[in-house]
Amino acid sequence: MSQANIEDNEVDIVIAALHSDLTSFMIEWKPVFSRFHLIIVKDPDLSEELQIPEGFNLDVYTKSDIDRVVGSSTSILFSGYSCRYFGYLISQKKYIISVDDDCIPARDSSGALVDIIAQHADNLKTPATPFFFNTIYDPYRKGADFVRGYPFSLRSGVACALSCGLWLNLADYDAPTQALKPGQRNTRYVDAVLTVPARAMMPVSGINIAFNRELVGPALIPALKLAGEGKLRWETVEDIWSGMCVKVICDHLGLGVKSGLPYVWRNERGNAIDSLKKEWEGVKLMEEVVPFFQSVRLPQSAIKAEDCVVEMAKSVKEQLGQSDPMFARAAEAMVEWVKLWKAVRSSQLST
Amino acid sequence: MSQANIEDNEVDIVIAALHSDLTSFMIEWKPVFSRFHLIIVKDPDLSEELQIPEGFNLDVYTKSDIDRVVGSSTSILFSGYSCRYFGYLISQKKYIISVDDDCIPARDSSGALVDIIAQHADNLKTPATPFFFNTIYDPYRKGADFVRGYPFSLRSGVACALSCGLWLNLADYDAPTQALKPGQRNTRYVDAVLTVPARAMMPVSGINIAFNRELVGPALIPALKLAGEGKLRWETVEDIWSGMCVKVICDHLGLGVKSGLPYVWRNERGNAIDSLKKEWEGVKLMEEVVPFFQSVRLPQSAIKAEDCVVEMAKSVKEQLGQSDPMFARAAEAMVEWVKLWKAVRSSQLST
Repeated sequence: MSQANIEDNEVDIVIAALHSDLTSFMIEWKPVFSRFHLIIVKDPDLSEELQIPEGFNLDVYTKSDIDRVVGSSTSILFSGYSCRYFGYLISQKKYIISVDDDCIPARDSSGALVDIIAQHADNLKTPATPFFFNTIYDPYRKGADFVRGYPFSLRSGVACALSCGLWLNLADYDAPTQALKPGQRNTRYVDAVLTVPARAMMPVSGINIAFNRELVGPALIPALKLAGEGKLRWETVEDIWSGMCVKVICDHLGLGVKSGLPYVWRNERGNAIDSLKKEWEGVKLMEEVVPFFQSVRLPQSAIKAEDCVVEMAKSVKEQLGQSDPMFARAAEAMVEWVKLWKAVRSSQLST
Repeated sequence: MSQANIEDNEVDIVIAALHSDLTSFMIEWKPVFSRFHLIIVKDPDLSEELQIPEGFNLDVYTKSDIDRVVGSSTSILFSGYSCRYFGYLISQKKYIISVDDDCIPARDSSGALVDIIAQHADNLKTPATPFFFNTIYDPYRKGADFVRGYPFSLRSGVACALSCGLWLNLADYDAPTQALKPGQRNTRYVDAVLTVPARAMMPVSGINIAFNRELVGPALIPALKLAGEGKLRWETVEDIWSGMCVKVICDHLGLGVKSGLPYVWRNERGNAIDSLKKEWEGVKLMEEVVPFFQSVRLPQSAIKAEDCVVEMAKSVKEQLGQSDPMFARAAEAMVEWVKLWKAVRSSQLST
């Protein structure tokens, strides 16, 4: 199945531990994860000791590690789902793969276990085609190609920077949708990967993603933190925000974003009605966030992801900062993040 | 499976007869086509009598019908694959579905016969979502919805004007690709429909399409005729050209284009190497055609498909007309087509 081979030392698997007992999660993933290095970041709000089975090559990071690296900065909060970004920050590998701790491996239509590492590697290591849509999806997959009418000059594609995987069983809905359709489960295994076209915006879910850290690592930032954010996916938008940052930056830098395979099997957790009772601002914010990202343009002088983030932070502050203090804080976190990213890089170089 | 019901009198199935014996084609499609009206247009270059089995509600149009309606105009050529456009011109139904005569019904992953009419109707009758990408594909399909982060203000979508179906077995490749991979067959049944995002261009294949004739009928035009065009799909680009016209017009008018299901089973026909030996300009032309359609913008005053086509023809003439006489002829055909379209409409009203 896998066309692009991935070396053990090219990838870090980053797991955000929002729950202390990772035993069954790790056992389920063992066939897929065992030959790779794992970075497990413990939610700083979690007090219990982590329970992790033997037999993995891993490093665990906790609140004290975060405090040591991040220091006095208070604009970036690594609590809850955002703790995984600390793993992104300290990784030194080319590729990062991250999956939520309420997911287990899915099976494809033939019943075979889905190897998310192999599929994300395929997605990231074969070119993306953001400038013209190929109707039979990823032209680089075995058995596929570019269809009639596809310009030959665009067939070499561009580097793929982000691979967004999907979810069987519980899909990634927001709290209102989940509350409205409590029994709905995603059972459709769509056997496709596609490049999301340039200038098209999308909601990137952090549940099951992979990215080229060297190309866009600095753009994945826990920047937009909701005031009432909790420990359930549908109470967060930090990944949606950072995904739109990445998409805009990829469009600007001529990189690609793919969506589709691989799937993970996502288990139920939490009660959507309870989440709805909290002040859930995410839905409302998207009405401003999406038009902003659809229209923001970066200066030609921004040629690295770091530059792009700093420029984007300026626009966020100018265009959204007045409407909600959360946006001003997001802009601040983006600037702070780039400083932190650079500081960690230079300390890694000096050791 | 089908969510949107289609009335018998809402649809014309248009078949271009490039071969005289339609017997097996019609028998294969009988379970799907029998309750609908068919328009069969005989390729004016074909001299043999058509063989069509009994038991269908159909009208056959031949060269003499075309001559009678089109009159003295010589800028629009209805030969070969382009003869189907005569069916689009004279239809009075809301929806058109058209499939090549070398295709038979496909079977889905469970082995069930694919009802292309029901699926195209679903695609056309449920909204399209061109302004934001939904990662789990068509949110209106049973079992699906909008994912977290999708703005609620965009969830009502827009009208879908064009539905582009796909092909199992022989995919729609160009002659070079087909010649290079003679044994390649498309076996992947991708169980998805998606809206192609606004401003993303795509190669529309005429093999298996459906459209809302009232919304975009005038934009499907046999305008770009290659000098060495033959009777094989990979020797033509008329559908690619007209598909890009429709896409630009949909983007301008706030309409949607979907791609994906339904599949047809496409049989082998012809020899790609023979086609390669002819002067095959299609590949070369795309290098100019795609950037043109990616950048062309229509004036706000163009509020109907007819206006849009006339405006687009002006741009084609200005921006492409000098580089190749084929483009100048295409622009002329587009203007002529709108006149013809209006004339046929007014003669239909007066009868």
